[in-house]
Amino acid sequence: MKQKRLNRIIERMKQDQVPHMIISDPVAIFYLTGTWIFPGERMLALYLHENGDTKLFINKLFPQDEDLGCELIWYNDVEDAVEILSRHIASDQIMGIDKTWPARFLLRLQDLCPDKKYVNGSNIVDDVRRVKDEKEQKLMRESSRINDRVMEELIPYVTRGLTETELNEKAREIYAKNDIKKLSFDPITAYGRSAADPHHVTDDSKGKRGDSVVLDIGGFYKDYASDMTRTVFIGEASERAREIYEIVLEANRRGIEAAKPGNRMCDVDLAARNYIEEKGFGQYFTHRTGHSIGLEDHETGDVSSVNEAIIKPGQIFSVEPGIYILDEGIGVRIEDLVLITEDGCEVLNHFTKDLIIVPEA
Amino acid sequence: MKQKRLNRIIERMKQDQVPHMIISDPVAIFYLTGTWIFPGERMLALYLHENGDTKLFINKLFPQDEDLGCELIWYNDVEDAVEILSRHIASDQIMGIDKTWPARFLLRLQDLCPDKKYVNGSNIVDDVRRVKDEKEQKLMRESSRINDRVMEELIPYVTRGLTETELNEKAREIYAKNDIKKLSFDPITAYGRSAADPHHVTDDSKGKRGDSVVLDIGGFYKDYASDMTRTVFIGEASERAREIYEIVLEANRRGIEAAKPGNRMCDVDLAARNYIEEKGFGQYFTHRTGHSIGLEDHETGDVSSVNEAIIKPGQIFSVEPGIYILDEGIGVRIEDLVLITEDGCEVLNHFTKDLIIVPEA
Repeated sequence: MKQKRLNRIIERMKQDQVPHMIISDPVAIFYLTGTWIFPGERMLALYLHENGDTKLFINKLFPQDEDLGCELIWYNDVEDAVEILSRHIASDQIMGIDKTWPARFLLRLQDLCPDKKYVNGSNIVDDVRRVKDEKEQKLMRESSRINDRVMEELIPYVTRGLTETELNEKAREIYAKNDIKKLSFDPITAYGRSAADPHHVTDDSKGKRGDSVVLDIGGFYKDYASDMTRTVFIGEASERAREIYEIVLEANRRGIEAAKPGNRMCDVDLAARNYIEEKGFGQYFTHRTGHSIGLEDHETGDVSSVNEAIIKPGQIFSVEPGIYILDEGIGVRIEDLVLITEDGCEVLNHFTKDLIIVPEA
Repeated sequence: MKQKRLNRIIERMKQDQVPHMIISDPVAIFYLTGTWIFPGERMLALYLHENGDTKLFINKLFPQDEDLGCELIWYNDVEDAVEILSRHIASDQIMGIDKTWPARFLLRLQDLCPDKKYVNGSNIVDDVRRVKDEKEQKLMRESSRINDRVMEELIPYVTRGLTETELNEKAREIYAKNDIKKLSFDPITAYGRSAADPHHVTDDSKGKRGDSVVLDIGGFYKDYASDMTRTVFIGEASERAREIYEIVLEANRRGIEAAKPGNRMCDVDLAARNYIEEKGFGQYFTHRTGHSIGLEDHETGDVSSVNEAIIKPGQIFSVEPGIYILDEGIGVRIEDLVLITEDGCEVLNHFTKDLIIVPEA
């Protein structure tokens, strides 16, 4: 067990009066143990008690070579894992449950122990995870440094007349060449009208003169995710496109400016959103301004108008305003990751945000 | 909505006295609507009432071009999706919940509607899904036909001295060449001692003379999964290895023999397991004999000693006994998919199960 991280979680459990809880998310279990275990449909549950007691309930199919630093309680495929769990938990009434724990386990536990009060305990772990320790900050910095390089290597291919799918594959190749094996998400390589649809699925269309091209990419470096977006134009950018680009860029800058300790997460969203609204494009900025990131591309703690949580040093999140006008086939998004420092933030992406026009194929 | 499938589910809801339920698993939603929607961390819930009422609760980020045949209830990122859901559900006390519904939603719904009795409703959907209709049977047959071809193309590469990772990549290439874009799981291409560990992770080791090589592969064809295992030997197979191979093969045959309507799932497991135990290798057969398969590689309904469900025509599952002796570095598994017919089963894999010895690199 990573003792410092465990101590921070136990401290929060005491504050929140959640004397014991279950963590089931493999990411959170990795965060605490340093070991990835992917149980598929089988139950994996790390039980924590505020008295320091830690037990991992694990199927015999996942033997562990290394000492995980907690008691291991094994079960097999013909045993009732939740029933075994229910015999090992303390009598405290309030019990935290991992937000991702599937209903098949929770409903069974509620049947077996009907008198407990079950609460979503994930805030405890997520709030601790959201503040990255030094080792994590270092890895996140390096992860984004590689992502900058991938973006730089990718953009020249936009000029070569590749389809979206081919450009997507090219992005994957470039990550592989840079020793990144797992991507944060399927790269977005969207031309023109597709760029104007934030949830467009990569297809076989090609870019044409004047198209905006949204490149939203990220990969995992030593388990830590990167995520950045740049928008470039093919051949030329119309007056209208340039206007929109500059507005999104300024919104991105204002969001970053607001990303500092003491501000709330919603202040970052509002800084970007108010500017876009002022300029008359509010209806075309259809998503939240960003999301927390770390061991996962999307971690809890979004940069949205309703998240009033106070920003703390060590947090890392994206600032990614966009304007999408489907009728005009224009889509622009500019995304950076920021690491909150004592008095502001460090932008983890360094690739230029100047407007880039790539030559036509 | 696929009306026939919906009708079968509603009929089962009435039988089980679950008047209304939530389906959240994207696979089950695809099964009923024919549309894939991957909501990530956002709530996606298909509400079904036995009176035929169907409502899909969906985030505005996932606009739908096609008519899904049910009422769509939209919410956005700043709204409380579960609260909206709670205002739309009927007053019936017993409510089915999808086994995969994350605790963050279930606990919130329980807070909002504390007087309902929540039950795991997934058996209803899973039992219906387990019995494949004609269209599904056709696709599963074709999916396994392609898998046979991939196995045939893959085995010659075992002779070329590739590392496990290289052989794994070769398998991926062959799937791609056969127009299979998504794999059922990460291909298992394990040599010798690694083959003797059913949960070995692919590494950079190479095969050596006498090694057993476990090849466990599968891919999705038009959304339907294949999954098969063959074990080949490099250069030679020792007397001991041949003995083990023949025992596993006979266990596979006996499992298939027992796969027929009226028998129970556990009878298939026992037919394979008892034979291996008789031969003195019981302790080395460390997993269940198989699993149901269809839109997912592992569907509910496993072929294990504790599953007493009666087998019905239309079911498809794997029969995959194995013997793994880590100390001797021998691992053998032979896996076929079977489709239950009116009076027995059709084996969906046709690739030979004769013992194959490939030349040394």
